[in-house]
Amino acid sequence: MPATPPLLTLGAIAERHGLALRGDPAFLIEGVCSLSPGIPGRIGFCADPKLAHQFAGSQASAVVVSSRNAGVFAGNVLVAANPALAFAAIAREFDSSEAFAVGIDRSASVAPSARIGDDCGIAPGAVIEADVAIGAGSYVGPNCVVRRGATIGAGSRLEANVYVGPDSLIGARARLLPGAVIGGRGFGLVPSKAGWVEMPQLGRVVIGDDVEVGANTTIDRGALDDTVIEDGVKLDNQIQIAHNCRIGAGTAIAACVGIAGSTTIGRNCMIGGASVIGGHIEITDNVLVFGYAMVTKSITVPGQYGSGIPAQPARDWRREVARIRRLPKVDERLAAIEQHLQMTPGTGDENGEQGDL
Amino acid sequence: MPATPPLLTLGAIAERHGLALRGDPAFLIEGVCSLSPGIPGRIGFCADPKLAHQFAGSQASAVVVSSRNAGVFAGNVLVAANPALAFAAIAREFDSSEAFAVGIDRSASVAPSARIGDDCGIAPGAVIEADVAIGAGSYVGPNCVVRRGATIGAGSRLEANVYVGPDSLIGARARLLPGAVIGGRGFGLVPSKAGWVEMPQLGRVVIGDDVEVGANTTIDRGALDDTVIEDGVKLDNQIQIAHNCRIGAGTAIAACVGIAGSTTIGRNCMIGGASVIGGHIEITDNVLVFGYAMVTKSITVPGQYGSGIPAQPARDWRREVARIRRLPKVDERLAAIEQHLQMTPGTGDENGEQGDL
Amino acid sequence: MPATPPLLTLGAIAERHGLALRGDPAFLIEGVCSLSPGIPGRIGFCADPKLAHQFAGSQASAVVVSSRNAGVFAGNVLVAANPALAFAAIAREFDSSEAFAVGIDRSASVAPSARIGDDCGIAPGAVIEADVAIGAGSYVGPNCVVRRGATIGAGSRLEANVYVGPDSLIGARARLLPGAVIGGRGFGLVPSKAGWVEMPQLGRVVIGDDVEVGANTTIDRGALDDTVIEDGVKLDNQIQIAHNCRIGAGTAIAACVGIAGSTTIGRNCMIGGASVIGGHIEITDNVLVFGYAMVTKSITVPGQYGSGIPAQPARDWRREVARIRRLPKVDERLAAIEQHLQMTPGTGDENGEQGDL
Repeated sequence: MPATPPLLTLGAIAERHGLALRGDPAFLIEGVCSLSPGIPGRIGFCADPKLAHQFAGSQASAVVVSSRNAGVFAGNVLVAANPALAFAAIAREFDSSEAFAVGIDRSASVAPSARIGDDCGIAPGAVIEADVAIGAGSYVGPNCVVRRGATIGAGSRLEANVYVGPDSLIGARARLLPGAVIGGRGFGLVPSKAGWVEMPQLGRVVIGDDVEVGANTTIDRGALDDTVIEDGVKLDNQIQIAHNCRIGAGTAIAACVGIAGSTTIGRNCMIGGASVIGGHIEITDNVLVFGYAMVTKSITVPGQYGSGIPAQPARDWRREVARIRRLPKVDERLAAIEQHLQMTPGTGDENGEQGDL
Repeated sequence: MPATPPLLTLGAIAERHGLALRGDPAFLIEGVCSLSPGIPGRIGFCADPKLAHQFAGSQASAVVVSSRNAGVFAGNVLVAANPALAFAAIAREFDSSEAFAVGIDRSASVAPSARIGDDCGIAPGAVIEADVAIGAGSYVGPNCVVRRGATIGAGSRLEANVYVGPDSLIGARARLLPGAVIGGRGFGLVPSKAGWVEMPQLGRVVIGDDVEVGANTTIDRGALDDTVIEDGVKLDNQIQIAHNCRIGAGTAIAACVGIAGSTTIGRNCMIGGASVIGGHIEITDNVLVFGYAMVTKSITVPGQYGSGIPAQPARDWRREVARIRRLPKVDERLAAIEQHLQMTPGTGDENGEQGDL
Repeated sequence: MPATPPLLTLGAIAERHGLALRGDPAFLIEGVCSLSPGIPGRIGFCADPKLAHQFAGSQASAVVVSSRNAGVFAGNVLVAANPALAFAAIAREFDSSEAFAVGIDRSASVAPSARIGDDCGIAPGAVIEADVAIGAGSYVGPNCVVRRGATIGAGSRLEANVYVGPDSLIGARARLLPGAVIGGRGFGLVPSKAGWVEMPQLGRVVIGDDVEVGANTTIDRGALDDTVIEDGVKLDNQIQIAHNCRIGAGTAIAACVGIAGSTTIGRNCMIGGASVIGGHIEITDNVLVFGYAMVTKSITVPGQYGSGIPAQPARDWRREVARIRRLPKVDERLAAIEQHLQMTPGTGDENGEQGDL
């Protein structure tokens, strides 16, 4: 990859990405931009039809847009069935930030028994231990540590300061962001009279192909069996995945989510930021959990789930908490009224369902 | 800076910091301490008038205090309009923990095209890529990684294991604590039939002057436009700031806060620990959000905001949750009573405002 | 320690760990496994009597189990009073993942004044500054940073990319997982007309013996006094402990917990994942806090505590929030009915206890 982004004509972009061009095929594009306000010489995109009109005056020199909204823009237009997807592919051509020098930097520490594939880049300060295997075209960034026996698939990228624990198995095209910790010790403790005793953690982390792991996200190795992240899973920053979890293929998890041990999340789920998912539960496929949710039991039916009471002015918040704390009083007052009126009383306090907690 | 803290007379301290001294100007101070119990030979401070009397017996050899409370202390006293502020300046003189060796350590990797200012210290294992510019007097600690094209202002300190992504722009006197990740890839994904496709993240992180970023805090680079942290922002540990956020000047954010993408927080805000702020919203200036809050919509009025129900004994907690789950029953019972009495019913279930979620 | 796990006979295992063997003492065991499905040639354990029957068909070649359940298993059985504890000790013998090369790697940076004990391993890229003392048999993993004046007890393990701040005092047999930050600057700020001024943080982190600190967990140094983690404390990943906290001996804290400054937690407490504990409070000994709790005030009575409303289908969640927001209306309706009936009214809105917030 070049260190300097290319200049591409609109015609070349249209051809490479199979898009219809309305405009000047010789126009030179030097980069990408957002449409508001837009940058002359660059190309932007509009994926949301409702926003097209407000971007009509963009200073961008070209727009990737669906056919339905192409008329909104007066200048150069590339028509795409899926503008966001087409733009992602175009933007990749202008992204030089992931170029790397092929070869092993002289300050890296690579064990003699490690097998490094063709066209890999091993950056300064990287440490690759014995019996590691790294697939062709992968990049191990500065000060990354890959422990003994770990395997990393072809075309992967360990950005910087990434830790990959012993015997971890990581698929192709992995993207591990700075500070990610894959395969640290799980939190396995046995109580004894002399205090906590550590249960050795001997399982692995097994990660499929095309997985992204965010900055400072941690994924613990299994206790005896493995922790498994299936193909195409996308993990944002500062997520914690405890030992023996399994995350199903295609699931995307936003930042700051915590998942306790031995929990299984299905395929094609979306977990909103800062949600917390308890241990030893199962979430089925195609579940969407809103951000900041507290998931304490299994979810067996696909759909949308949430919890949490949104913030409000502090005075109202304090009153609301006080009112919730006074709910027993509401029960009492209702019961007193019902008794007074000799009505059939509603369900009393002790019969409530408490199965969630 | 010296590695060994200095010995200073009380007279010298008073003079340097413009404080009135009541006591022995020749007394030698060898360090700072808290007042309870206090350490002989050291100086402490009292900022809270209500606590002055309980510190009266402190073993500290001198106290920085306001004039109103000076009488409480029998020994050496330095009188300051703002005791905490004066003490911070005094304490800085006794802090040798940030001394560093000027020069580039032989185990650091510095690209030939990088420009390193005068009096900088580049520590062992630090990696500084091509076209980086670092201002005078800055320190890049052990095993930090500064990517291609990044700029760091004068007098900055990257403590250790810090990551600064490509083309990041960081102002003067930045303080980046261990494990901070500035300018990692944002979590930009486009759904497709073949699974998630990564949207390249080509914006920068732009950080003003006098910004502190806590340990293991992550700030993602923008997708197309920049993620912006304005002057004087103070970020505690383990905060997550997603792509395209803007944090206004002077805002302080406590630990473990998560802020989703494209959100703007105003100036001089304070965000309490572990709060979560949704994406694409705006919080105006001078907002205080209490800890553990769930902010889901824009805040347009300055003031204090909060959410969350505090912990209580588990038995009470479970009952309370059950009561909340039975609120529909309360509505039913009220309606039945009202009907029985032929009273005008209150607002029913389906009319509630649900705009927050 | 050997890099290749050993082969041990069941007889040798029984003898070393003082367990009764029912089966073939010459049988060679090559590792450990879980019982479901189990792996031939390996040994597993059953700690939960209720699960014994479902593991009866395990393919494991031996089982550690209590005498009560020994009869469930047809094959080789090691009888232990505490199967989990016995298994932890056995598993340790098969765990070669923590073997290290004794000596100082040539790419490590060790200050001449640092004292490194016998049989230590200092890995590639590790940085050990002046006046550090490291006890015998300890391992400082790749790219760890140990600041000036820090002390680390014998038999400790700093896994990788760990930061230990200046003058930190860490006991024997510490286990610090990748990315842990011990002794970073506390978040101490003084407001001034010119913005936030940093209060120097000059206290230490003092950690007892047998403490585990999880991956990317951060523990700030004290402002003036120390932050203290007592003996036998076990901290999971991504925990934040602010300045001047004290965590009592034997307390275990699950992942993603945040503890604000100057808070004391007693001995033998258990704090569930993602809970948040406010600043300047005290939690007594033997308290269990469930996960995701919001602890805002001191807990003086041992026992179990919790908060939070579990997730539910999004439609129900939104309605529930709306109902909570309408609680004032419930009060009004109750009051109207009571007035209509000329009953003594219940406690009104303004009398509520709000002391928690």
